[in-house]
Amino acid sequence: MKRIAIDMDEVIADVIPKFIKLYNRDYGVPLDLVIEPGNEIYKHVPEHLNQKWFEYINEPGFFRDLAVIADSQRVIKALQEKYDVYIVSAAMEFRNSLTDKYDWLAEHFPFIDWQHIIFCGNKIIEADILIDDRIKNFTTFKGRPLLYTSPHNLLITDYERVSSWQEIEEKLL
Amino acid sequence: MKRIAIDMDEVIADVIPKFIKLYNRDYGVPLDLVIEPGNEIYKHVPEHLNQKWFEYINEPGFFRDLAVIADSQRVIKALQEKYDVYIVSAAMEFRNSLTDKYDWLAEHFPFIDWQHIIFCGNKIIEADILIDDRIKNFTTFKGRPLLYTSPHNLLITDYERVSSWQEIEEKLL
Repeated sequence: MKRIAIDMDEVIADVIPKFIKLYNRDYGVPLDLVIEPGNEIYKHVPEHLNQKWFEYINEPGFFRDLAVIADSQRVIKALQEKYDVYIVSAAMEFRNSLTDKYDWLAEHFPFIDWQHIIFCGNKIIEADILIDDRIKNFTTFKGRPLLYTSPHNLLITDYERVSSWQEIEEKLL
Repeated sequence: MKRIAIDMDEVIADVIPKFIKLYNRDYGVPLDLVIEPGNEIYKHVPEHLNQKWFEYINEPGFFRDLAVIADSQRVIKALQEKYDVYIVSAAMEFRNSLTDKYDWLAEHFPFIDWQHIIFCGNKIIEADILIDDRIKNFTTFKGRPLLYTSPHNLLITDYERVSSWQEIEEKLL
């Protein structure tokens, strides 16, 4: 059985609307803010606020109420029939994210058991396919990388790209 | 640079004395209890208490004040000069262990950055050497396994064994 590793943020968990919501609450950044291709959210706020995202992301609870990316639950459940599916998140960067991410997965992906969850820094994992929005996670990866589309990676052309879970379903199932 | 993955419990963090201390506090189990070769702690307590360890290990704080296994800090620091060193713990089994283990590492191993810490279930990692006390973690491992001695694994003869961090130092440095 082939092994698939799946990232969390911006792949199954929708982080950007949460940032926008907090920047909106505190500084009136518009809720319909569109992030330009190749940009990160902090490039779209006044310069003196561009480190604020780091405070937000470190707050307990930040990762607990993120929306689930459309179709990810259904498609991952289907993938489990044919693949050995792992969730692999670089959660270790943010101490307070660990329990939030654990609880979020238990709520939204209860069909993924603890043996198949990995919180790490560098993704030094053995897998056949890695679905991730950050190309830095592909540098040491020996399998087939699938770049999940997010505004910040829209200008990157070096990788096989997937832009929705429907597309993943078509490719892998 | 070769990569070494190092387990936490019973390799760098001394779990057994903590269990004995709690069984002693609650049921008068002797503090000098010696675990027989091949046995787990729960085989040494009255049968109606043998699931108690599972309650203890799930309590917030259980993993936060464990003693550091002798010489592990010094030897791991030295290993970092020659190897790419990762901590890889199957922490995902116990939700409340995540933050405790993160804080414990920050206190006792501040020289290991977040990129080099992995909390997982199955250890599907790419590494050259894995130091672990549980042989189940060796089943899918493709590198060189080093079995770190713990009472429960004393009867196992199939693996290269290390019984102290001094021995690891002699073997790998």
